[in-house]
Amino acid sequence: MARTHGSHSDITGPRIRDAALRLFARHGYAAVSMRQIAAEVGVQAGALYNYIPDKQSLLFELMQGHMSETIAACEARPKASGALARLRDFMGFHIRFHLARPDAVFIAYMELRNLSPENFAVIEGLRQRYESLLESILTEGIHEGTLAPPDPKLATRAVIAMLNGVNTWYREGGRLTLDEVEAIYWDMVRRAVGG
Amino acid sequence: MARTHGSHSDITGPRIRDAALRLFARHGYAAVSMRQIAAEVGVQAGALYNYIPDKQSLLFELMQGHMSETIAACEARPKASGALARLRDFMGFHIRFHLARPDAVFIAYMELRNLSPENFAVIEGLRQRYESLLESILTEGIHEGTLAPPDPKLATRAVIAMLNGVNTWYREGGRLTLDEVEAIYWDMVRRAVGG
Repeated sequence: MARTHGSHSDITGPRIRDAALRLFARHGYAAVSMRQIAAEVGVQAGALYNYIPDKQSLLFELMQGHMSETIAACEARPKASGALARLRDFMGFHIRFHLARPDAVFIAYMELRNLSPENFAVIEGLRQRYESLLESILTEGIHEGTLAPPDPKLATRAVIAMLNGVNTWYREGGRLTLDEVEAIYWDMVRRAVGG
Repeated sequence: MARTHGSHSDITGPRIRDAALRLFARHGYAAVSMRQIAAEVGVQAGALYNYIPDKQSLLFELMQGHMSETIAACEARPKASGALARLRDFMGFHIRFHLARPDAVFIAYMELRNLSPENFAVIEGLRQRYESLLESILTEGIHEGTLAPPDPKLATRAVIAMLNGVNTWYREGGRLTLDEVEAIYWDMVRRAVGG
């Protein structure tokens, strides 16, 4: 049967991905069945297969979509002048983009173990591409003489890990506003990489 | 039936926890059944209940054991003189202790969502107690005038997140030895907290 475009498929595809994202984040990929995803969307289990061949493809699409969106959003920002300003901008972008997507972030880290080797290689490539955006800022700072990270590759990982931590504890209405958190992290990030 | 001590229970209890740790880390808590754990240990599913009332207790025991061991091992170390030396010592301890326990670390972060509210409160308390060991070093450094973290609480979280990152990428035989990785991280950690 030919798949029709412009009607159900346009709405149902995203609804399936939303439902899978919620269920994977809450219960873990391995504990969720295609039947449960179908029930969450409100369609028959069989109907799911018109949109997605299997659960692995769904996990891969979610992770690939998240990483590609992250890279595209980061690259689409106006390029600030100088490595220090670009680092500050990257930091603010990373914190706010990820705080807005807790489920996708959680899955992107937690479910790597459940990707097939081929799919893992693609996601790993996208992760490296995102990291290279930060690494190139650090390298630029070395050339300018404005930054002095001890090792640009490790500094990239250290800064991203530090920023990812914010996602695990920041809650609106806590002791500090997000602007205050950003200012404190900027102080630490800048100093850590010798800026 | 009364539980016997000194024979099977001494060996089987730890074997059950080891099997559960491996299976939870590989497949996720929600996807693993008590039956699978029993099969991994090589006992009947019913026999498991002589050692542990349910899967939730098993998850809690694993996480509580890991956190308590971490705190005890950290506190048992000889106290270095001065905040800077104590920070360097804490960093080396944290990296090496966690690198040796990848499954326990993975579960400690990933399976928080699967703890009952009462169990979560206990684990969260232990996590805060561990963080307070680092925070007290930072506070001591402020008093000494040897450290100047912008906010000791956030600096504690930032440093721990940075160090936890090492667990996700460090592999023996890579570009850098663990000693080199430690030296690079020490440079970043020290500078991030104004040391």
